[in-house]
Amino acid sequence: MSNFILHSKLAADTLKVLTLEASQLLLMNDARYPWLILVPQVSDMRDLHNLSALQYQAVTQEIVQVSEVLESVTQAHKMNVGALGNMVPQLHIHIIARQTNDAAWPAPVWGVGEAQPYSQEAADTLIQQLASKLS
Amino acid sequence: MSNFILHSKLAADTLKVLTLEASQLLLMNDARYPWLILVPQVSDMRDLHNLSALQYQAVTQEIVQVSEVLESVTQAHKMNVGALGNMVPQLHIHIIARQTNDAAWPAPVWGVGEAQPYSQEAADTLIQQLASKLS
Repeated sequence: MSNFILHSKLAADTLKVLTLEASQLLLMNDARYPWLILVPQVSDMRDLHNLSALQYQAVTQEIVQVSEVLESVTQAHKMNVGALGNMVPQLHIHIIARQTNDAAWPAPVWGVGEAQPYSQEAADTLIQQLASKLS
Repeated sequence: MSNFILHSKLAADTLKVLTLEASQLLLMNDARYPWLILVPQVSDMRDLHNLSALQYQAVTQEIVQVSEVLESVTQAHKMNVGALGNMVPQLHIHIIARQTNDAAWPAPVWGVGEAQPYSQEAADTLIQQLASKLS
């Protein structure tokens, strides 16, 4: 964990929510969808199956924990969970709350239109709601 | 498990590889990408976080197991793993072997072009390779 440095693209596109036991939790700065990114604090990992058994167990538990909280906060119709990493090679997991009237439904959110940054107030409110349920 | 029925859309789009302990493993009938779908044999589940702790542990172990075998068989550049389910509500997990020269790279594979069915011989060969490493 000491060698962990967040990829510059993830840092640029997101707002920090909080640090969990295994991962950093980030909010994509795109108000079209409540879209979280979980970044396990490990060095030089690209794929989920590269994690050690202990790391994998911790990260998969955080996927569930974050999914439940995000679903509850947003009253989402469906959660989307994905580890792609074709563009940003640092292992990261997308956890996205989908609604049937969102900008991409029913397609995946990746590559659809342009991100619409949150207002400071909207971001603060959502981050506060999420962090208080996760800490 | 006794009430489990594979969704008709998944049945129509895939070829059977084998049944694992928790899930059915299917091959998308699309020769553009080696693309597997893991379907936990549970009824009325839509999201990963709806699984019981025991089911979730079994399914996440199968995700790793299948990812490792698919990567090894295909010599993939990158694995993509996703649970979306916006169109097919039955819980299923995509495990896709990506190459930097494939038809969608670096975008996700969903919604890109038309599936190109395997020849019988190519499908049999790939299914045999996968099944022998997984059983």
